[in-house]
Amino acid sequence: MAAQAGPLVDLSIDNDGIAILTMNRPPVNSLNLELLEEIGKSLDEVAKNKTKSMILTSSSPSVFSAGLDIMEMYKPDLKRAEIFWTTLQDVWIKLFGSSYITAAAINGHAPAGGCLLSMSCEYRVMVEGKYTIGLNETALGIVAPTWFMDTMCHTIPIRQAEYALTTARMFTVDEALQVGLIDESASDKADAIDKCKKFIRKFDKIPSLARAVTKQKIREGPLVRLQKNRQQDTAEFLGFLKNPKIQQSLEMYIQSLKQKAAK
Amino acid sequence: MAAQAGPLVDLSIDNDGIAILTMNRPPVNSLNLELLEEIGKSLDEVAKNKTKSMILTSSSPSVFSAGLDIMEMYKPDLKRAEIFWTTLQDVWIKLFGSSYITAAAINGHAPAGGCLLSMSCEYRVMVEGKYTIGLNETALGIVAPTWFMDTMCHTIPIRQAEYALTTARMFTVDEALQVGLIDESASDKADAIDKCKKFIRKFDKIPSLARAVTKQKIREGPLVRLQKNRQQDTAEFLGFLKNPKIQQSLEMYIQSLKQKAAK
Amino acid sequence: MAAQAGPLVDLSIDNDGIAILTMNRPPVNSLNLELLEEIGKSLDEVAKNKTKSMILTSSSPSVFSAGLDIMEMYKPDLKRAEIFWTTLQDVWIKLFGSSYITAAAINGHAPAGGCLLSMSCEYRVMVEGKYTIGLNETALGIVAPTWFMDTMCHTIPIRQAEYALTTARMFTVDEALQVGLIDESASDKADAIDKCKKFIRKFDKIPSLARAVTKQKIREGPLVRLQKNRQQDTAEFLGFLKNPKIQQSLEMYIQSLKQKAAK
Repeated sequence: MAAQAGPLVDLSIDNDGIAILTMNRPPVNSLNLELLEEIGKSLDEVAKNKTKSMILTSSSPSVFSAGLDIMEMYKPDLKRAEIFWTTLQDVWIKLFGSSYITAAAINGHAPAGGCLLSMSCEYRVMVEGKYTIGLNETALGIVAPTWFMDTMCHTIPIRQAEYALTTARMFTVDEALQVGLIDESASDKADAIDKCKKFIRKFDKIPSLARAVTKQKIREGPLVRLQKNRQQDTAEFLGFLKNPKIQQSLEMYIQSLKQKAAK
Repeated sequence: MAAQAGPLVDLSIDNDGIAILTMNRPPVNSLNLELLEEIGKSLDEVAKNKTKSMILTSSSPSVFSAGLDIMEMYKPDLKRAEIFWTTLQDVWIKLFGSSYITAAAINGHAPAGGCLLSMSCEYRVMVEGKYTIGLNETALGIVAPTWFMDTMCHTIPIRQAEYALTTARMFTVDEALQVGLIDESASDKADAIDKCKKFIRKFDKIPSLARAVTKQKIREGPLVRLQKNRQQDTAEFLGFLKNPKIQQSLEMYIQSLKQKAAK
Repeated sequence: MAAQAGPLVDLSIDNDGIAILTMNRPPVNSLNLELLEEIGKSLDEVAKNKTKSMILTSSSPSVFSAGLDIMEMYKPDLKRAEIFWTTLQDVWIKLFGSSYITAAAINGHAPAGGCLLSMSCEYRVMVEGKYTIGLNETALGIVAPTWFMDTMCHTIPIRQAEYALTTARMFTVDEALQVGLIDESASDKADAIDKCKKFIRKFDKIPSLARAVTKQKIREGPLVRLQKNRQQDTAEFLGFLKNPKIQQSLEMYIQSLKQKAAK
């Protein structure tokens, strides 16, 4: 792991009163237990301070978030793995079901868990370039849980979601725009944040209680589904980790990453 | 209120045997209890006479329907408010779940409840011009109930519905066409009705029992959901009316309408 | 019935290890009990041999499958009709819920049950020409059961599905492409099979367990719904067959087919 420079998450309130939540776990914002805990705390803080809106982004110049930290899944301590998973569930429930306005300034690659976090926001602006976004879990031999799928089906048509999920499809910015996986593209991070703010300003004259309840109502299906099946969902994840085939897939993937890094 | 000229609803059968249901509560077909009751009775009549099809339109030159009459919600008599709401539920169940063919000739603005009525039909033709359509409840501080949302999600993708519902988006005719909120545009009311008839004629050779059951089956989800939650839905509406914040939003909205009218 | 040349189904494994399941009941692959039983057995064989993938196609030069054999429904032996229907349910559950990769090379017309079989696959390539595809049950006075509708809504937007189902819409190849009912068009059968193989090759590097579970998870809703309501679904079908109006519709349809054939 790279040495950690500063806190794992930076939460600031900008001049417009908008909370900017910047993930900061170099090099690629891999979502390990500690980063997820810090994201969760920041979401609590935004909610507690009744900040009207939040933009989620990354401190990395090229990666929004690489997704779940594979080291939390490879040869895991099952006790920690369970806390890891329930923390991820918590973060999603807080973010997908938040009462405040949420937007993602996707300033780099957003595979798997990175894609999930951005899809859990209400609006997505992605920086142009070679970056890609998608739920590519199957490429690693992992099955995206039901609530990952539900979140994707809340964003793009189910036919597109099935194709993307099974083929581990990573969308280019243009492809993501076309299918509706993102809402806008931007020239750079500053432009992405500006466009997120423009989205947030659409709500200036909308009474915030009605807006929040409306959002939570239309998102109720996936939220209630996870809340009802939380224990089973956790059990499935842990069962998956115990599967030798899965561990083998993860090992092969880690080897391929090491070979890439060595080049 | 403007003086009422003639009955609140005109129901006629045209030469093709198609029922034309014209809302006629000047100036803007605000849906108050009495108008909803008359619409409900007309829908019953169409069903009873086994008329094959119905076109819903407005006698106003510029408004299809302005939606629920805000005066039914502002400082309400709760007894009347309850009847108002259950009557609205009845109208929707009759229209959305009707066995006969339904089309809306949207000859003017169709915000909120006006949009709901048109979306509950099977086909929508809207007259070109400055008219707009959408579920803009949040702008008034109101939350569209689940069955309004379900009706919209039956018409346009859920991602588009969430964006539209939270931002109180009013679609222009072109925007509505593009997203699928309407099926066709028309040059004027006569053209809109002609296009509705063209849609209706598509069923000339389709056995009507199979057509009706097919329609009701694919609409079963939203229908059953309201039928199961009717009492709770009514309680939510009444609870909402009792909320001082909601009453304040309504008051501000009424003031803004008065100021507009005074100009 | 035309004399049967060879077995009702041809199942072969090609050089790439892909199973090719060819329906072969001349002249139009009407799905009668025997053909459905043979398809079911072939699907079992593909699953048992752990073949990675399967392409479904037809031996006819112009028809993929004409759908359910109307002679199974017209003046039926109810005992046989029940076995017919449960066999169709079985085929759908095996195909829609299969763990192996599935693609349809639609080399001709695909109305009703023919459309259902192709939609139950994960990918559809259709040969250009005058061929059409759709769930046109209502034209025959029949109601497509809920799981036919669910399968269509898994493929195209619900608004499009309602319109298509009620109007008995048959899509041209171009229309099917545009709405997403098929994924690609092809110049002929060989080209269609090539394009199916190209789709299948997308999974070469995807661990197959994760792919299979992902597919089955996103298809869980419709699968569980039929499994829960199987008996009721069968009872509905049998009740439908007993309806004199339905029998009359079927008779009229059979007459029109005879008239066409006589020209």
